[in-house]
Amino acid sequence: MISLNDAYHILAATIPLYVAMILAYISVKWLKLFNPDQCSGINKFVAKFSIPLLSFQVISKSNPYKMNLKLIYADVLQKVIVLVGAAIITKVRSNGHLNWIITGFSLSTLPNTLILGIPLLKSMYGDEADVLLAQIIALQSLIWYNLLLFLFELSNARDAHMIQLSAATGDSEARQEAQGIDKREETNSRTLRRTKIMLLLLTVGKKLLMNPNSYATIAGLAWASISFRCNIKLPKVVENSISILSDGGLGMAMFSLGLFMASQANIVACGKRLALLAMVLKFIVGPVMVVPSIVFGLKGVPFKIAVIQVLPCFYYYCYYTNNININRLINYYLVQAALPQGIVPFVFANEYNVHPDILSTGITVGLLVALPIALVYYLLLGL
Amino acid sequence: MISLNDAYHILAATIPLYVAMILAYISVKWLKLFNPDQCSGINKFVAKFSIPLLSFQVISKSNPYKMNLKLIYADVLQKVIVLVGAAIITKVRSNGHLNWIITGFSLSTLPNTLILGIPLLKSMYGDEADVLLAQIIALQSLIWYNLLLFLFELSNARDAHMIQLSAATGDSEARQEAQGIDKREETNSRTLRRTKIMLLLLTVGKKLLMNPNSYATIAGLAWASISFRCNIKLPKVVENSISILSDGGLGMAMFSLGLFMASQANIVACGKRLALLAMVLKFIVGPVMVVPSIVFGLKGVPFKIAVIQVLPCFYYYCYYTNNININRLINYYLVQAALPQGIVPFVFANEYNVHPDILSTGITVGLLVALPIALVYYLLLGL
Repeated sequence: MISLNDAYHILAATIPLYVAMILAYISVKWLKLFNPDQCSGINKFVAKFSIPLLSFQVISKSNPYKMNLKLIYADVLQKVIVLVGAAIITKVRSNGHLNWIITGFSLSTLPNTLILGIPLLKSMYGDEADVLLAQIIALQSLIWYNLLLFLFELSNARDAHMIQLSAATGDSEARQEAQGIDKREETNSRTLRRTKIMLLLLTVGKKLLMNPNSYATIAGLAWASISFRCNIKLPKVVENSISILSDGGLGMAMFSLGLFMASQANIVACGKRLALLAMVLKFIVGPVMVVPSIVFGLKGVPFKIAVIQVLPCFYYYCYYTNNININRLINYYLVQAALPQGIVPFVFANEYNVHPDILSTGITVGLLVALPIALVYYLLLGL
Repeated sequence: MISLNDAYHILAATIPLYVAMILAYISVKWLKLFNPDQCSGINKFVAKFSIPLLSFQVISKSNPYKMNLKLIYADVLQKVIVLVGAAIITKVRSNGHLNWIITGFSLSTLPNTLILGIPLLKSMYGDEADVLLAQIIALQSLIWYNLLLFLFELSNARDAHMIQLSAATGDSEARQEAQGIDKREETNSRTLRRTKIMLLLLTVGKKLLMNPNSYATIAGLAWASISFRCNIKLPKVVENSISILSDGGLGMAMFSLGLFMASQANIVACGKRLALLAMVLKFIVGPVMVVPSIVFGLKGVPFKIAVIQVLPCFYYYCYYTNNININRLINYYLVQAALPQGIVPFVFANEYNVHPDILSTGITVGLLVALPIALVYYLLLGL
């Protein structure tokens, strides 16, 4: 199904990422080249410089006047469903916390498109797949990464609020408060509630205004609107200024991942139970998010494909517009399944220290089990 | 003389480097994003990963069977003269130290070719200048950077030896020892002297064996010998594995420079006196190294050019082979003079903490005064 040539292109695009990761792992685990603070410096460089500039490049090159609306709807719907689902599940469980919503959302709906998807699919299918994928990726950077950052900052601000409370009311009370804040907020009508939420949002807003990702995505959209309307391009000097720091982003992000892994006692950093959960989220919850495909009238073989893949809207669109045949769809899935978890959510999670262990496991173990699982799906569904 | 188009290409290649540097400067000086340890992590990444991989790429792409021997002789002769000169001057001065030989050598003979010269000259002259410059650069990586690293390690090992002595013989004696070691070594015939030198060289050798730069250059030469003999290329997966970490090297090195500058109280980090010395070394000692050009029979206008430029052998070769006309030679000089000090020697100096302030000043102030000085030379010599 997958030709030898395809397989070679997949390997040529993915193996280097693992080389970067393994080099970083060795340099910390065995050579003791970097201490934890130095590692966090490298992660910070990726989070604050490489990724924003990469996002700007992607968004500014995607024509906002030629976005496929159906594609956008399907993508938004898929992600909203996961987000609401994750919120309900964490609410129902007593130890529910915003952090789990973030991690669940990242694992289920944010595969590696920004820094791995483009070179991979481009190397396999040329510029054909590029335009569509660029739209998905522009959306990912513009909406979903910003939402992710918003949730990270919200979680941070809430934690800070908890610590303040704990200092004021004593430890045991604060612990109760921390566990029961959602329930209390529902039932409690102190006039303070609205003020508190406003204060939280203000803190979060301030933090986001200091985040280069926010600026990069807004600037990217603004420039795309201007450049495609007036048909002008960025001056070469500006383009070079951006690419000089974004060029290494891909390798640096994987390097940062390797550094993180080496700082953990085990490669399956989060333990086997959580690793299993991560895999379930990535390979079962992600793919069965077929509702958007059904809503938009997907059936037959493409529906089967939609069941097992991670970006249903993309596949649906390809089928709908007859841009793609069944072999290619299967190839796409195998590629997509073989793609590790998105690296950007890991870099953010590491920066905010919200379950980076689970996301790093998602990326590393993901690759080791991805292809076998993809093949099992393939056999089971008789595609 | 320089066309508007040339000027634009020069700016489009150099300004981004300064953008990367300024971004780093702002992020530390004003935003306090990185602490000193995190900065050193980024510098270490550049020194241990980006630069070795970049060196491997450059060396492995340069055909060792088609090296221009005259070019090599002129280059080696020029550098040996500077090295011997620097050694004599530091020996004569009472506070002479190996570190000053290293810094003098870097400033006078190692302009920015590896990471700035290629994109700059390529953008101006296309692939024409590429082959020749690649030979200079391959030599720089293969011989001169390794020599630099050897000297750095030697200096380190000697300092460590001083500290041991100081612990054994008390502080004041050690200070005398530190200042007078060269003289004592000359006069002293303890049988220990040979043993001591052997031990020093052994320590240095061990350190160099742990340095990725040594491996990268040797591997680069080995692969070049094989690939040009048998006409085979690196598999794509290997090539991608290398470029994934070397791609960002240029930007990261400038970023690292910006981080260092921000850690200093003043942009002219080494003080005005040393900054002047650095400029003299770069713009007077470097360019008047015309002996190699004389040795190889250079005269007339190209000789004038040789007087004022930094890579006489390169210009000489271009003239000799009629590959280049006089306008281009002048352009080359202006470009070369406008090139800041080499970034790689700075990264190494920062890593070994040997006068990084002087080298960083050489790079930053170099650009601000380079073009005016180039123009003065141009008027004085009536070129």
